[in-house]
Amino acid sequence: MKLIFKCLGPLLFLAITANGQKNKSENPPVFPLGNKVTNGNFTGNVWLQMLVLNDTIYNSNIGSVTFAPGARSKWHFHPGGQLLLVTEGKGLYQEKGKPIKLIKKGDVIKCPPNVVHWHGATPTDDMTHIAIGTNSQKGNVVWMDYVSDFEHKSFK
Amino acid sequence: MKLIFKCLGPLLFLAITANGQKNKSENPPVFPLGNKVTNGNFTGNVWLQMLVLNDTIYNSNIGSVTFAPGARSKWHFHPGGQLLLVTEGKGLYQEKGKPIKLIKKGDVIKCPPNVVHWHGATPTDDMTHIAIGTNSQKGNVVWMDYVSDFEHKSFK
Repeated sequence: MKLIFKCLGPLLFLAITANGQKNKSENPPVFPLGNKVTNGNFTGNVWLQMLVLNDTIYNSNIGSVTFAPGARSKWHFHPGGQLLLVTEGKGLYQEKGKPIKLIKKGDVIKCPPNVVHWHGATPTDDMTHIAIGTNSQKGNVVWMDYVSDFEHKSFK
Repeated sequence: MKLIFKCLGPLLFLAITANGQKNKSENPPVFPLGNKVTNGNFTGNVWLQMLVLNDTIYNSNIGSVTFAPGARSKWHFHPGGQLLLVTEGKGLYQEKGKPIKLIKKGDVIKCPPNVVHWHGATPTDDMTHIAIGTNSQKGNVVWMDYVSDFEHKSFK
């Protein structure tokens, strides 16, 4: 045990477990975990680190969002669209009326303007993505219904 | 030696050395290294993995750019601005007429529209950033002069 700690000790960093607690893992995150999201637009434990606040120069907003296993957004849409860059873990993405897709570290997901969708972690993995809101001059995200446990677990 | 390899073996991934060769390091990159850039707009060894191609839906383009030590862009500007998210290493950023700034993993840099600047690695570290071109409907990047060795090494 002492030997294992000596080998891996310098590489231990914080990660997230299903109950939203922090635990030891191998990989340092690119960006800080940020603050727990408490705005009611998500199910489960979600953290947000804002990287770029919206303004009229870049017409974009950027945040790093981390979902604990089982956590997900409400159904929602973006008038100007959104681009997701998955930086850690495995998650799910679904557009209304289409099958749920598995998404993982390194994937790029395009959320087209005005298309209703949700994204989050799988039931068993955490997931972090950089979310880039584009054309923000076209309006803010519009939040809709919660994604039910039945919907979230229907991924085949 | 065998013991060290047993401990660290699963964590060994490719990284870059000063001469542009690949070498072993501890951290897996978030995105692939991509292809060597050969368009003449950079000095030294630079790789680009495009993540989002420009279009009229998102009005954005995104690429992960990796600079070997000493590598840097030409002086240039973006009519619609650019946002840089540093994902690995240490690099340099300078706007015309201002001091060179050290940038590192986790930093966010805003390149304002029409402001002449350059970015790249330090002389001794490699650096990877996600480059997000915003408001791309306002026009393409405009390339200017090379950053000389004297300019690049003038960081204090």
